[in-house]
Amino acid sequence: MDFTDKKPQRPLYEEVANQIITMIDGGTLPVGARAPSVRSLAKQLRVANSTVVAAYRKLEDEGRLQARPQSGFYVRAPRRDTVEEPEMSRPPETASDVTVGDLRLLLLTEFGQPGIIGLGASSGAVSDWSAKSVHALMSSISRSQPRLSSSYPPPAGIPALRRQVARWYLRAGCTLSPDDVVITSGALEAIHLCLRAVTQPGDAVALESPTYWGILQTVEMLGLKALEIPTHPRTGPSLDALEVVLGQNLVKAVVLIPTAHNPLGSTMPEENRRQLVAMIRRANVPLIEDDIYADLVYEPARPRACRSYDAGPSASSLVMVCGGVSKTVAPSLRIGWCAPGKWLKEVTRSKAWLNIASPTLPQLALARFLEEGGYERHLRKVTTIYRRQVERMSELIAEHFPRETRITRPQGGFLLWVELPERVDSVALHDRAIKSGISICPGVVFSAAGKYRNCVRLNCGLLWTPEVERAIPTLGRLIAEAMGATAAGGA
Amino acid sequence: MDFTDKKPQRPLYEEVANQIITMIDGGTLPVGARAPSVRSLAKQLRVANSTVVAAYRKLEDEGRLQARPQSGFYVRAPRRDTVEEPEMSRPPETASDVTVGDLRLLLLTEFGQPGIIGLGASSGAVSDWSAKSVHALMSSISRSQPRLSSSYPPPAGIPALRRQVARWYLRAGCTLSPDDVVITSGALEAIHLCLRAVTQPGDAVALESPTYWGILQTVEMLGLKALEIPTHPRTGPSLDALEVVLGQNLVKAVVLIPTAHNPLGSTMPEENRRQLVAMIRRANVPLIEDDIYADLVYEPARPRACRSYDAGPSASSLVMVCGGVSKTVAPSLRIGWCAPGKWLKEVTRSKAWLNIASPTLPQLALARFLEEGGYERHLRKVTTIYRRQVERMSELIAEHFPRETRITRPQGGFLLWVELPERVDSVALHDRAIKSGISICPGVVFSAAGKYRNCVRLNCGLLWTPEVERAIPTLGRLIAEAMGATAAGGA
Repeated sequence: MDFTDKKPQRPLYEEVANQIITMIDGGTLPVGARAPSVRSLAKQLRVANSTVVAAYRKLEDEGRLQARPQSGFYVRAPRRDTVEEPEMSRPPETASDVTVGDLRLLLLTEFGQPGIIGLGASSGAVSDWSAKSVHALMSSISRSQPRLSSSYPPPAGIPALRRQVARWYLRAGCTLSPDDVVITSGALEAIHLCLRAVTQPGDAVALESPTYWGILQTVEMLGLKALEIPTHPRTGPSLDALEVVLGQNLVKAVVLIPTAHNPLGSTMPEENRRQLVAMIRRANVPLIEDDIYADLVYEPARPRACRSYDAGPSASSLVMVCGGVSKTVAPSLRIGWCAPGKWLKEVTRSKAWLNIASPTLPQLALARFLEEGGYERHLRKVTTIYRRQVERMSELIAEHFPRETRITRPQGGFLLWVELPERVDSVALHDRAIKSGISICPGVVFSAAGKYRNCVRLNCGLLWTPEVERAIPTLGRLIAEAMGATAAGGA
Repeated sequence: MDFTDKKPQRPLYEEVANQIITMIDGGTLPVGARAPSVRSLAKQLRVANSTVVAAYRKLEDEGRLQARPQSGFYVRAPRRDTVEEPEMSRPPETASDVTVGDLRLLLLTEFGQPGIIGLGASSGAVSDWSAKSVHALMSSISRSQPRLSSSYPPPAGIPALRRQVARWYLRAGCTLSPDDVVITSGALEAIHLCLRAVTQPGDAVALESPTYWGILQTVEMLGLKALEIPTHPRTGPSLDALEVVLGQNLVKAVVLIPTAHNPLGSTMPEENRRQLVAMIRRANVPLIEDDIYADLVYEPARPRACRSYDAGPSASSLVMVCGGVSKTVAPSLRIGWCAPGKWLKEVTRSKAWLNIASPTLPQLALARFLEEGGYERHLRKVTTIYRRQVERMSELIAEHFPRETRITRPQGGFLLWVELPERVDSVALHDRAIKSGISICPGVVFSAAGKYRNCVRLNCGLLWTPEVERAIPTLGRLIAEAMGATAAGGA
């Protein structure tokens, strides 16, 4: 076949793509093999580099090739579709006290240790780029305004940052004024302040199951009980279950992560959001909406925040939307926020009494970063990378983990939730993995009811290195060993 | 008199000083008048400038002249000693709920407003200098380590800063290891974390009366009750009263500011500290020691922290010492710390669940500032300035406030506690003062029991300007008007 003989009916890159498929199907390029480099194939077929790139992108879209960061294109295992998704979760129907705090603290201290591959963390390394920009801004602000540090910042935050946050929420369909926004030291502090504004010790709150362990800790810290709601790994919490819980007055607040949920990656469909807000308004129960991963959805535009479905003035909203930049710009800034609707005054006051205010300089630098418009470009860049890395991690798991493994299909962010065979104890697995230099996040910490012992959450947001690639086979081996030990122990 | 005719028995500067005294006593230089400038007097008397400076310093030491920042030397009012100190406080003997939160939040937002003379605040403007140094360090660290922001800082804080804090506490007689220290977002957060580690909602805690309103808010926020202890304006809390309270098991914790107390400026004598620690050990009740003003004592060396009297390993100490740099380096950094002794693990965990950790860059910059040794020099400089400004403010009050006014004799820091005649309502005074562009801190916010309505706390830590000088006569006039109105209203 002579590729210089162009057939006008069919674009040239499709011919190239077909040729590659023939090579794959014929076994010339087996699963896992690296496809020829763009340059060498272009030379070989006497076409332009851009034609080969277009062909590879097409095959990537069709799921035949997999782009690996800084490495090239690889033939994809067709097994991907045979790895099932987890089912809807089935938490207990009664509220639980929260108690695995020591394990969570251990995990938190492990994540940042040098020499550890932090698959247990939830931070995206590509925020390096934005951190660099924000640092440069801090440096420039420090130099130009040396005296700005000599007074306390206002409790609700620096006005310039509150303006930027309010503006940003237009993307989420919310019309906020800067005065509706309170700046906090990270999104978890925002959730803490909102939750304490609407509950008393002893109250129960409804949560997804599984859900982010930080929220469970906040629930414990405030002396509350957690009522876990069955949750679907793609569409989020069961509204039927939530309706029953609200109808029976079982909870004083609902705390959800409707968009790119941690750990599931689930994203509530628009219609569910509308129904959810109608339900909480009927029951007159506040909804705390953790929005922190929403800017990392894989769709071109983020879904509207639940808050946007609560019509009427911000000052009467029952939806307290919380967010932050730890997943998108830099966790070390420790900047979050909330728009606490009806409880604005209570939240502002709690923020003041807790730690007066958040530090000035990181707020000013972030405000300028958001204002100068680098944020959207940055988000597009990192979201593409995270999606690819989640895909690649899924492939590696499909290849190296036991057959019965199930993995989520996240719709945003950089986290994978992996359901291992029932007999695998992920806490024991964690202890073995850390000795091999790999941190993982055992499933138990995502449930107040002690569920998900056979699950792990894996971070695909790391800077992708050969060590990360090798960590998954290592984990697969440790799981196999653990299962062998269990089987032998059971014999 | 010819000053060139030197008499060897008596230094020349003493002759000059005597000449000035003659001018004062004779009425040539009345109280409040500005003494001739150094240069003009030197020229006039045909002596060296340095001789006049020495003479003025001598007269300053003797209380005859007052140096005013950036202005010169002024003849001091001899009334100073006739203004009495407040007496030992007499709070109620039962614990109170805390409730003046709205007023406190209002105050907090007023303090930083442009165009307001912030006599109600508690922040020292001369920290401008250190803020500038720390900003320069941040700028340099940002440039040299652009990637440090891409991971979460450890919950207990950056090791370099914990090392510096531990090292610094040697001055307070405490042998701490970096592992004993938890970095927090300001000292108030440290107190919050320590208090929540040792109490349950409904418990009572013992405090000085009056005491820092931030501590009272923390007490309210945690659902605790405040038991106010009679407190002497120079020597701090009554140990007799505290012994009764501890003996009757009335409180689950004691929270004190033993050194340069806010608002009193009181500093517990060494022997009282020893007794206090023995008492709390006998009762097995933790002491939270707020140490934030201790680096600003007027004595050459700070007193030993109460913590240092609790012998034995740090891990079993009942004294949880808390501090920070908001009063000494820069409030906008929002950096504090605690060494929570026996409750290290609980406090670290709470810090993690509250907001994961404090931001990285301010911690690194402060660590370097403490390490590079500018801190001690800076402290000597600002303490001298604060002491002078407190003196000057006392003079102005003596001159312009009603005769029955009492003022404290602070032993450190930059705060004055002013007891006005009983019929003055300082909340109403605050409302009138703010309309004249002056913020003051009404006494009621320093008591859970609603006491001190006729008291105000004034901040002498401001950058001293003619506006600050003029604010006190203005306040004096407002007080006189209020008293006239009261008298008229009563007639």
